[in-house]
Amino acid sequence: MTLTAVGSIAFDTVSTPFASGERLLGGSAVHFALASSFFAETSIVGPVGGDFEEHHLQMLRSRGVLTDEVQIDHAGRTFSWRGHYDYDLNTAHTDETQLGVFADFTPALSERARACEVLFLANIQPSLQRQVAQQCASAAFIALDSMNLWIQTARDELLSTIELVDCVLLNDAELRMLTNRPNLLAAAREVISLGPRVVIAKQGEYGAALFTEEDFFALPAFPLENVVDPTGAGDAFAGGFIGFIAAKSADVSHENLKRAMAYGTAIASFNVEELGTARLQRLTGEEIAERVAELRRITQFIEEPVELRSRPQA
Amino acid sequence: MTLTAVGSIAFDTVSTPFASGERLLGGSAVHFALASSFFAETSIVGPVGGDFEEHHLQMLRSRGVLTDEVQIDHAGRTFSWRGHYDYDLNTAHTDETQLGVFADFTPALSERARACEVLFLANIQPSLQRQVAQQCASAAFIALDSMNLWIQTARDELLSTIELVDCVLLNDAELRMLTNRPNLLAAAREVISLGPRVVIAKQGEYGAALFTEEDFFALPAFPLENVVDPTGAGDAFAGGFIGFIAAKSADVSHENLKRAMAYGTAIASFNVEELGTARLQRLTGEEIAERVAELRRITQFIEEPVELRSRPQA
Repeated sequence: MTLTAVGSIAFDTVSTPFASGERLLGGSAVHFALASSFFAETSIVGPVGGDFEEHHLQMLRSRGVLTDEVQIDHAGRTFSWRGHYDYDLNTAHTDETQLGVFADFTPALSERARACEVLFLANIQPSLQRQVAQQCASAAFIALDSMNLWIQTARDELLSTIELVDCVLLNDAELRMLTNRPNLLAAAREVISLGPRVVIAKQGEYGAALFTEEDFFALPAFPLENVVDPTGAGDAFAGGFIGFIAAKSADVSHENLKRAMAYGTAIASFNVEELGTARLQRLTGEEIAERVAELRRITQFIEEPVELRSRPQA
Repeated sequence: MTLTAVGSIAFDTVSTPFASGERLLGGSAVHFALASSFFAETSIVGPVGGDFEEHHLQMLRSRGVLTDEVQIDHAGRTFSWRGHYDYDLNTAHTDETQLGVFADFTPALSERARACEVLFLANIQPSLQRQVAQQCASAAFIALDSMNLWIQTARDELLSTIELVDCVLLNDAELRMLTNRPNLLAAAREVISLGPRVVIAKQGEYGAALFTEEDFFALPAFPLENVVDPTGAGDAFAGGFIGFIAAKSADVSHENLKRAMAYGTAIASFNVEELGTARLQRLTGEEIAERVAELRRITQFIEEPVELRSRPQA
């Protein structure tokens, strides 16, 4: 199935205790598409400025990403983010955000992009996400990411956008904030009651949990001794997860959703091994398959009944 | 195999956003033994005061726990803890601790207790743990729990005690603090380099991870909509985990360790459903087996190769 991803294309300047880099190619749509393009033809929709170079577009195309819908405003500058992480790599600290061309971004989808069968709405203003969702009326599966900023400043728009989608990806704190429910299972069930069939709780170094109306699945993160830069890991996860669903013709049986979680988890683990999108840019299908197999090995156990002692009477 | 657990026997006064209770029977040895006694005859070693009532001992015996080694000091008072939890149930806030008879506790093990085949050293002063470990020279498997207090105030004693044991259970923050390593995998490997064969990282609502020299395993927590009181969940986990190992004659093959993780996870999930040890006191073997099966269902996926797209050349 064809996939369209709408989100940011950015230059990230990142500093972690383990590495740092300037103006690295990033953005939610880029991390997503470098992952999803392993599974489905992915078109990215997002704005860039005159400082965005042709070799970046070429790299994306070399990875099977369609760049026709990248909106180039030669007079403007590409969205840029500068941030750092402390030893606790779970929390990104923003030092500077320059919206550039992203400030006035209105997604303009071609007829081809609108006809996509699967749609990913990366973390942008909820009413823009809603516009896009309405344009892609024939999509069989629409997924949405968001963040605390929109929960706080555009809560109603976000809720009415959530009603339109099949899948919501948020981190634990965001799910709790959105629903005012401290219990994660209760929070996820409340989001499902709004319309989506699938809710994914992103849990950083602890992996991810998947909720549907009648079922549950959780997968730990792949253990790494060398985590360099978590930027974009959630989008890479989304790319693997949603890409897999697109490859399976949007068949969201529970077994497929579980496998999709494994592919998302595997690709996210590669994403964090190097700065920015460096690792994803040279990732191979064989490496993904190997890591999914390894992930299976380290999370699966074989049940074997044990004889439990009967209780003596008091 | 026979199991001896050395630790606290306590009265806990607990307040959470969902329930509260006064002078509930608790303590690390009690939560542990109520879990481990499903798998192996468990003798608990710990001090109580004149305020400890016969019906508490009777309840323990009715659950298959041997209480001969409970040291009763009729002139003293039982260790008591008062604490509360906010909506974030991961963090216990201590309001008051009265050590009582626990202040002068020196474990005095009978010949029978010393002859145990599996030993659990709950979270007490590391040099006391060391004394006990040395007394139980014939134990085939010794596990140890500890806490931030001892890492800060008795680090060297803790490290030299860790050298004597087969298994260390700590939470993520404690593993990082003990080793000064922010990366959990690196921290666990460093602890293994001190001697233990198995390190378990307890991760609260995210479950637990198991590290050995050559392998890894992680299991998410069982999802619950109704978490009432997390007190003692780590000890209940340890009871299920170590109890299972005792039931398997201390065979710590990786397959057994993984199954032991499942039993620990299942029992810990019951522990938190009600205040104190209330749920464990009436837990049945059938309930444990059912939850392990359910846990397997919600964490296992079947691999199915997906055709990954080949990359076009740039």
